[in-house]
Amino acid sequence: MSQQSHLGYIGWNLITEPDDFAARILVEHLGAAESWQWLTSRYRSGGSPEQIFQEMLSLSPGLDTKMLDALRRWLTRLETANPEAELERIAKYRAQVITPASPHWPEQLRHPQLIHPFALWVRGEVGVLKQPKIALVGARAATAYGEYVTNQLVEGLCDRNWRIISGGAYGIDAAAHRAARASDSPQVAVLAGGVDRYYPVGNSELLTEIEQSGGAVISEMPLGAAPRRVRFLQRNRLIAALAAATVVVEAAWRSGALSTARHAAELNLPVGAVPGPVTSMASSGCHRLIRDSIAQCVTDAAEVHELAGALEVNAPLGDAGLSPATPGLWDELDATAKRVLDAMPLKRATTPEKLAQLCGLPGNLVLGALGQLSMLGAVQAVGANWRKL
Amino acid sequence: MSQQSHLGYIGWNLITEPDDFAARILVEHLGAAESWQWLTSRYRSGGSPEQIFQEMLSLSPGLDTKMLDALRRWLTRLETANPEAELERIAKYRAQVITPASPHWPEQLRHPQLIHPFALWVRGEVGVLKQPKIALVGARAATAYGEYVTNQLVEGLCDRNWRIISGGAYGIDAAAHRAARASDSPQVAVLAGGVDRYYPVGNSELLTEIEQSGGAVISEMPLGAAPRRVRFLQRNRLIAALAAATVVVEAAWRSGALSTARHAAELNLPVGAVPGPVTSMASSGCHRLIRDSIAQCVTDAAEVHELAGALEVNAPLGDAGLSPATPGLWDELDATAKRVLDAMPLKRATTPEKLAQLCGLPGNLVLGALGQLSMLGAVQAVGANWRKL
Repeated sequence: MSQQSHLGYIGWNLITEPDDFAARILVEHLGAAESWQWLTSRYRSGGSPEQIFQEMLSLSPGLDTKMLDALRRWLTRLETANPEAELERIAKYRAQVITPASPHWPEQLRHPQLIHPFALWVRGEVGVLKQPKIALVGARAATAYGEYVTNQLVEGLCDRNWRIISGGAYGIDAAAHRAARASDSPQVAVLAGGVDRYYPVGNSELLTEIEQSGGAVISEMPLGAAPRRVRFLQRNRLIAALAAATVVVEAAWRSGALSTARHAAELNLPVGAVPGPVTSMASSGCHRLIRDSIAQCVTDAAEVHELAGALEVNAPLGDAGLSPATPGLWDELDATAKRVLDAMPLKRATTPEKLAQLCGLPGNLVLGALGQLSMLGAVQAVGANWRKL
Repeated sequence: MSQQSHLGYIGWNLITEPDDFAARILVEHLGAAESWQWLTSRYRSGGSPEQIFQEMLSLSPGLDTKMLDALRRWLTRLETANPEAELERIAKYRAQVITPASPHWPEQLRHPQLIHPFALWVRGEVGVLKQPKIALVGARAATAYGEYVTNQLVEGLCDRNWRIISGGAYGIDAAAHRAARASDSPQVAVLAGGVDRYYPVGNSELLTEIEQSGGAVISEMPLGAAPRRVRFLQRNRLIAALAAATVVVEAAWRSGALSTARHAAELNLPVGAVPGPVTSMASSGCHRLIRDSIAQCVTDAAEVHELAGALEVNAPLGDAGLSPATPGLWDELDATAKRVLDAMPLKRATTPEKLAQLCGLPGNLVLGALGQLSMLGAVQAVGANWRKL
């Protein structure tokens, strides 16, 4: 895709928060470059949110007034949003921005059930983003037991060629990152704020090491963004999406790590939880995930490896976590077929209607894609339903 | 049923081991009194196993030669088997023998998927056998963690009016029995050998306390029977069958407690396992049960209570564990209807053919019973299938 697309995505990312659905709908419909050019030109020619909304209404009479609220949000930030300037600033940090228009963009982030990020700010080696990863997450208030188990898991997973991804926080996150360093394995830390300010400060040395040893410190938020609470929760969805499996080592009854697990489950990605003493509050969230059938009980690296699917590690880079059973196939597919294949449940058969809903695509496109996928041996019709092969 | 039936069951029990299927088939077909009278009279009139087998063949030409092996087994013990004498001997132990012919016989032991015991030797209070129970079982080599959790669970379960049943062994079993004593709750210990010799010797004081404080020490084996390995495994099926739910607190990768859990699962009874540190070998069997979906992960008494079904505790004595949803109904049913109702899965619908197989009853009897049960509101037809209400 073009440099204009790239800049468009960055622009949108500068003026929106990750939970801005209106922006995603607009970009989806008009394209990143086109929607960005339209918005900025209307703004430069002096259009107020109300005027721009009236123009939009004349084209799409059914438009929701939420779009007016969205325009007001966007325009407050548009004055200072300058994608080209951001690219210059980021160079200082030996960093880069990747977007869905970049060759480095991880395919996992196109998952149809994911609220797509517009861009990732990356410090370190961008290549590690496409390598098969396991997310190890957990409580900041980790116990010695949790840190010990984290060490054992990470060592065993790195031995099996998995990369580790986590959130750079204290406790289990930090233990996972340190263990991956000890195994000399490139890894990924996903921050809730901008990559220019390493947070928490106590882990800044660790994060610097990650970035300088073949790994990457990344964020969806632009430079200067503060790590706010809502951004932590949004960040967790990226950790889950980028990993072939998410493992919670220790988590209290209400822990942010549980949100990462739930995001992974929503994306139909495998989730593991490590049991611990029932007397330990730090394990109660893990037991909850197991009891609620959100997570599989995992007790060692071999079981996590099995959970994530041994094929992942050998799948071509870029497809890891999405189509383990069909390496090579991916490149032959058009965008619609990719989207349909991604949306199909791993084991169950499903209806074209359900798929259309999951993909947000019209039924005839989904049926066409299913036909294409079936000829390629990727899916199979089972009565009126379809399942992955 | 008659005293002759009672003595017949005791006689069969004296000459067979719990895994003797041939004896069960014969008793099922001829009745306990009739089969015992036939066998003893043929033996007293000097019949050899071969002669008796020839007679049987003339009546049932397709008879398997396994029956000849069985006759040889039975006749080796028939010389010394004397049900009346056994009843006199057992009086010394302030004990009694109950059989399927006794009013005290727990309905759970008529479960169609259970290898039925012919008799139970009971020291103490026979009434506790019909009270709703939870089985707490686990490793002999228990850790302090396992014993602590056992204490907590038993205390919470006794508070909720559950009785405890276990195997009287060292470790978790003993911890469970001691905690039930501390809660002053009647309980049941199931031994693998005869109730005249308390095993293990180190727990004989504990077993005596159980027997003398409103509980019961029971065994399927007659007086004098040694606690052999195979008898431990057979004993475990009775613990599972007599409990509304079985909970494994600690168990190594290969532990006898896992066999109790598997027996419970085969009887469609709920199974719980308590998680523990993944670094503890004593919890590895519990994690295995959870991973294999044989057991639900349980972390406290409330979760065990929920697992066993809160209704159990309030169900009329005698039906507990089998038909919690239909208290009172049970007494109105004939034997066939009871058998069919017992065999029905708790949640799923099933076919009359499958039920006939489970019950070992002809299809027309099963259909008749389903009609009766349906009029009583205990079951419902779902298309060609039937389900419990």
